[in-house]
Amino acid sequence: MALRRVAIDTWRENVAYLHRDCAVYRAEGFQALSKIEVRANGRHILATVNVVDDAAIVGCNELGLSEDAFAQLDVENGHTVSVTQAEPPESMGALFRKIAGERLTRADYAAIVRDIAGHHYSKIELTAFVVACNRDELDREEVFFLTDAMVASGRRLDWHEPLVVDKHCIGGIPGNRTTMLVVPIVAAHGMLCPKTSSRAITSPAGTADTMEVLANVELPFEQLADIVRDYRGCLAWGGTANLSPADDVLISVERPLSIDSAGQMVASILSKKVAAGATHLVLDIPIGPTAKVRSMPEAQRLRRLFEYVARRMGLSLDVVITDGRQPVGNGIGPVLEARDVMRVLQNDPDAPNDLRQKALRLAGRLIECDPDVRGGDGYAIARDILDSGRALRRMEDIINAQGSKGFDHLHPQLGPLTFEVCAPESGTVVGIDNFQIARVARLAGAPKVQGAGVDLMHKLGATVAQGDVLYRVHAGYPADLEFARQASARDIGYRLGDADAVPQVFVEF
Amino acid sequence: MALRRVAIDTWRENVAYLHRDCAVYRAEGFQALSKIEVRANGRHILATVNVVDDAAIVGCNELGLSEDAFAQLDVENGHTVSVTQAEPPESMGALFRKIAGERLTRADYAAIVRDIAGHHYSKIELTAFVVACNRDELDREEVFFLTDAMVASGRRLDWHEPLVVDKHCIGGIPGNRTTMLVVPIVAAHGMLCPKTSSRAITSPAGTADTMEVLANVELPFEQLADIVRDYRGCLAWGGTANLSPADDVLISVERPLSIDSAGQMVASILSKKVAAGATHLVLDIPIGPTAKVRSMPEAQRLRRLFEYVARRMGLSLDVVITDGRQPVGNGIGPVLEARDVMRVLQNDPDAPNDLRQKALRLAGRLIECDPDVRGGDGYAIARDILDSGRALRRMEDIINAQGSKGFDHLHPQLGPLTFEVCAPESGTVVGIDNFQIARVARLAGAPKVQGAGVDLMHKLGATVAQGDVLYRVHAGYPADLEFARQASARDIGYRLGDADAVPQVFVEF
Repeated sequence: MALRRVAIDTWRENVAYLHRDCAVYRAEGFQALSKIEVRANGRHILATVNVVDDAAIVGCNELGLSEDAFAQLDVENGHTVSVTQAEPPESMGALFRKIAGERLTRADYAAIVRDIAGHHYSKIELTAFVVACNRDELDREEVFFLTDAMVASGRRLDWHEPLVVDKHCIGGIPGNRTTMLVVPIVAAHGMLCPKTSSRAITSPAGTADTMEVLANVELPFEQLADIVRDYRGCLAWGGTANLSPADDVLISVERPLSIDSAGQMVASILSKKVAAGATHLVLDIPIGPTAKVRSMPEAQRLRRLFEYVARRMGLSLDVVITDGRQPVGNGIGPVLEARDVMRVLQNDPDAPNDLRQKALRLAGRLIECDPDVRGGDGYAIARDILDSGRALRRMEDIINAQGSKGFDHLHPQLGPLTFEVCAPESGTVVGIDNFQIARVARLAGAPKVQGAGVDLMHKLGATVAQGDVLYRVHAGYPADLEFARQASARDIGYRLGDADAVPQVFVEF
Repeated sequence: MALRRVAIDTWRENVAYLHRDCAVYRAEGFQALSKIEVRANGRHILATVNVVDDAAIVGCNELGLSEDAFAQLDVENGHTVSVTQAEPPESMGALFRKIAGERLTRADYAAIVRDIAGHHYSKIELTAFVVACNRDELDREEVFFLTDAMVASGRRLDWHEPLVVDKHCIGGIPGNRTTMLVVPIVAAHGMLCPKTSSRAITSPAGTADTMEVLANVELPFEQLADIVRDYRGCLAWGGTANLSPADDVLISVERPLSIDSAGQMVASILSKKVAAGATHLVLDIPIGPTAKVRSMPEAQRLRRLFEYVARRMGLSLDVVITDGRQPVGNGIGPVLEARDVMRVLQNDPDAPNDLRQKALRLAGRLIECDPDVRGGDGYAIARDILDSGRALRRMEDIINAQGSKGFDHLHPQLGPLTFEVCAPESGTVVGIDNFQIARVARLAGAPKVQGAGVDLMHKLGATVAQGDVLYRVHAGYPADLEFARQASARDIGYRLGDADAVPQVFVEF
């Protein structure tokens, strides 16, 4: 049959389009949702059949493939391909046992993850695996098996150095851009920190989105390696490196189901870090009433699971439980967050102190991984690097090496359409809802519209008078502004009250 | 936007095709797998977005809909439609709670099933629901809630008679075509038995496939009602009646995952029966080493769940646990099974006695639902109806009313390509693997090729000499014959041994 590229993006599921009158379809007893194996040039892929009745999409002697599938097969349009009913993926038996609630072996996880990374699973099978592993279905040994298999599913970087540091936050706190401060600080201290980050999935900005305001973040690996050799650090998007590719496939079904179980979170984060070649990791778990983790016992359970799996993976891990009661910094959205980061690096008096302090403490923890640094000295070393301007210079070096966008933090290009949300009464700020503020920022256009987002004027504990501006919303398009306005009208995301009603959290710093 | 029918069959998932450069796509921030609401003429449907880069599939000002979705919207090609980001389905919160392992309320199940029947769930959400309800996750009250909601999701027939009987088997036993004998027997006794059946999903033939050898089974409801009024029974395909439509959607993901949990089986079967207007049901649960149910304790657990839910639904239920150690009758495949059924009705000396006996006992149980029949008399009444030819005449009436295909049971049109599987040694038949025999029959082409299948020459307990024919395989196409030959070469599906090694089951009859 002749291959035909069908320009449909089916979002990480391989779909094959076969005409209903196609001889292969009729002879082999394929049906809708059958899985077929497509072979050409020594390669083969699996795809799920959609039946087509329109020869303008695929003809009777053609096999159509969706964009992803076409790219995987990697032959030109019109190439001859052969098609057979696919054997079920090797790991199907293991999947059925997991659905039935059994504990799986290391070999089972290896087979499942190989099939997932190889796009052998349909969306249905993928979802079944994710849901069957949800809740407390995975014991900690299984989480290790899953993590290990995910690392093995893709590329694993080796930096040929004994100490490769990384930091990560489990997420959920808007504005929390400490990575862009920690990397230049620890790199200036001489530690190797080849940082790859993600783009926003459900948040108003990921580190990669914010860094992209300052510099190019989509770089070929060889160029990244050069930058890391020259400057001991980089701040790039991790999507091109093929690190733990099964994770990206799993996320495609976890996201629409809002699934974020402890086991899957641990496997996702640690597999990416180990694949990226990290030897030492500082992990930030924020807790607060609207954070992902709501209580200290829950944070401690999660910490123990991270620590167990990290030890099995040979990764040195330092978990830090932090204050997640409110957004970090003032700006939420790529440009606004880039502005805050640059203000901190410039030692600008308008720099948000909470962002500065959190970054210094995390950087200090990483610096203490250096065998020549005494325990407790890390914070002061980090502060010296920041205050002396060495962190700024290192950041400028990295920005220039990756390709500067010429960002001017004194005149950031914010979304020109704005409205302000004001205090409905006088009082103390006793609550800021991370979810609601993130929702308003996303509706305003972040991260797609770089200058869109929310700029907070007051944080927890501040005293405000009725009518004071609590935050300003920036948008690029009238429709976005209107969506954000409606959302903030329903719930402004701030609670005002008595000064003693500010929620307390007891965290390490 | 202009509606465009995209002739792609996406198998019960609504897919919307939007061009990447489409204004709506860009403005609203849709992305692959976003769900959108499409409105036209006062109707609305939800669909999952696939992004298209080819204007030959959809143009920038067009909205493409897959076949199913297009049919649901029910307006002509080119009609103006409006599109918005869909609110998440009403029941999404309940779904997330079920994924998290919580018990759901009656209102939760009503909302979930309404969304499923309304095609508001994506494949991912559907799979998540099925897997989250798998195993023992549903308590019996929840199974009742689910069943009740499934009945409410579609049409519910009312025959305006106090006694409407039905029979059902949980499946898994090839050749088990008792329904086609029970219906004419009980109808000849005067009981109302408006039987709708399914086609094969994973088996070599369903009752509808086998009946289709004899008569038309796809009839409009009004014609069925006339036949039932005239002859007290019918044997039709249930797919057109919109009975428990959510069940059909759920099956579309249960099948590829081989999920067949007790709760889902009970809800699926009982919802269809109640929706079809049955008041009395005889349910056949076969047990045996290769049946769905392997042991008596398991059968009893399943029986209790069926009985509990049936009572809550107001359905009078009689569960019969039967011998499922081997196929019933001799033929497996539509024509072969139709031949066996007609032989029994004709009182042909070659008729398979196990099929005859099982049908008489099940019919006897149903006849005892007649308040004028004494307990224990049902079997003899059924036997009189069969032996006297009254059952045959009633069957002929029903066949003619539905539209006879002129089947000649003395000269059935079997697949012309055949091979025989012979005993590799002498001995007693001590095992026949239901799964393997069904697999060989399916590979030979059943049920698509009506004359394809397996014809068994010996059953459990028979003594055979080396080289005796155990079964003959019929196929319509050389490729099918070869697939079946390979499968039976790997495993003939028969075990031979000592006479005392025949497995015993202690069933009610």
